Amino acid sequence: MQYDSIVVGCGPAGIQASIYLGRMGLNVAVVGKKDDSRLVWAHSIENYFGFPEGIDGALLLDKGISQAKKFNVEIIDEEVISIKNDKSKFRIISTSKELITNSAILTTGVSNQSSGILKEREFIGKGIAFCVMCDGIFFKNKKVIVIGEGDYAAKEALELLDYTKDINIYLNGKDSKITEKYLSELKSKNITIKKIKVKEFFGQAKLEGAILEDNSKVKFDGAFIAVGVSSILSLATGLEVMIKNNYIIVDSNFKTNVQGVFAAGDVTGSGMQVSTAVGSGAKAAMSAITYLKGIS
Amino acid sequence: MQYDSIVVGCGPAGIQASIYLGRMGLNVAVVGKKDDSRLVWAHSIENYFGFPEGIDGALLLDKGISQAKKFNVEIIDEEVISIKNDKSKFRIISTSKELITNSAILTTGVSNQSSGILKEREFIGKGIAFCVMCDGIFFKNKKVIVIGEGDYAAKEALELLDYTKDINIYLNGKDSKITEKYLSELKSKNITIKKIKVKEFFGQAKLEGAILEDNSKVKFDGAFIAVGVSSILSLATGLEVMIKNNYIIVDSNFKTNVQGVFAAGDVTGSGMQVSTAVGSGAKAAMSAITYLKGIS
Repeated sequence: MQYDSIVVGCGPAGIQASIYLGRMGLNVAVVGKKDDSRLVWAHSIENYFGFPEGIDGALLLDKGISQAKKFNVEIIDEEVISIKNDKSKFRIISTSKELITNSAILTTGVSNQSSGILKEREFIGKGIAFCVMCDGIFFKNKKVIVIGEGDYAAKEALELLDYTKDINIYLNGKDSKITEKYLSELKSKNITIKKIKVKEFFGQAKLEGAILEDNSKVKFDGAFIAVGVSSILSLATGLEVMIKNNYIIVDSNFKTNVQGVFAAGDVTGSGMQVSTAVGSGAKAAMSAITYLKGIS
Repeated sequence: MQYDSIVVGCGPAGIQASIYLGRMGLNVAVVGKKDDSRLVWAHSIENYFGFPEGIDGALLLDKGISQAKKFNVEIIDEEVISIKNDKSKFRIISTSKELITNSAILTTGVSNQSSGILKEREFIGKGIAFCVMCDGIFFKNKKVIVIGEGDYAAKEALELLDYTKDINIYLNGKDSKITEKYLSELKSKNITIKKIKVKEFFGQAKLEGAILEDNSKVKFDGAFIAVGVSSILSLATGLEVMIKNNYIIVDSNFKTNVQGVFAAGDVTGSGMQVSTAVGSGAKAAMSAITYLKGIS
């Protein structure tokens, strides 16, 4: 079967896009591992319009997937390995399938890159977090560290100042890549940068601190992992889609430079929020619908 | 009291923005009549990520309002009469209040402009609709008319072709303003334009047709009102906010040309969807937060 549109990536942007496409009666599949979506790791989302009690991220994603299935969207829970431009069609290769489509919507998001520190996964949502705008509020007046070596870590640390004053950046043994502009701002706000290497997180029900390389212990309430975002280069380069700073470049209608290829959500740098992901997913789908009408 | 931010307009874009602002611990109010939001008139929203069973528009808006209140957002259910730039602050005047704020987010949406035909309101959601992308799906293979005299009506009629072939445009007694490009496309798709003036809609439980000026009856299943969108000129001009084609001009971060003034949702032409409204509302709030940090 040939698809009208294939959405690559199974997070809120991709599922929202597929709902619009499926509702138009198009042949649509979403290909991507659900567990790769950052949403699955979000313990409680309290800032997405329509959920006054907050909602668990994995549950919200499941609701979205049910919704897409109602519009006959096929959900293929497999990793996409490569995408190729095949004349004016696209060939999408996943673990066990090879699919042909007239259009593609890239919504692969950004992975939360692991710090590599032992027991990190165990404390996600219990003291370990990946986004200050999302979770900073849970650390009011707490002792918090930010793990990372670049300007992204510095930005996260500065955003934490809205919630607490007790902030340290841990380079985790790496060399600092923080630029002069951020360094002076960190200094003026009394945020200290430590080269210190962390071996393992510890805690009972929730995070209580970390064991360092020399086996000494340091106590804190929260750790934001800010080691950067993973690259989508490998998928996008096969398509000759333009990329800048690891994000896919799109116009205001979420078109990429390649005809028939659209992108939405965090992979376009759209704000790391469910709300912005679904907004961009809807827009990308509308652009794809217009495109498909033009070629039909 | 002086506010950090006032959101003008009580729809999904405005409420989503207020949730972000309130969650940051800022002093925030939303001023606007809830019943002026188009969302209140949407009988069933089935394409907003997270609601697989669909949700009534008024209920969804109420959920959002409860959510905003949890973050201490003040909800003022009053019409905004004028907004003035008062040095680097803004003065917002509603029916009974005069408020001062450091920033303003304009989310007044677009009103569904009435056709002026008798019993229109009675059949909204029961055969009368305002947006083909939203509700076209409910009219598969049905007989449908589009009421309007401009290119907007033509665009809506052409979009209906995805669902049905039996489409007429009723100018409702007005002169056609449809441009040549659209006229030829309508012709090629066998969509007829009728000058006919409609007096009154009729039907039992749902819309069945209309009574014309000469008291003859015409039967159809659906009518899309596409007489254009109302102007937000009156509010925005007081602020010297730039407007084009009745939409507020914003950059990709939803900033207007006036420092401290942001806009989101349908008032920026962002797609007439709940998903795009909340996406833009979140982004406008994030821009306002950054702005407020700079002036504090």
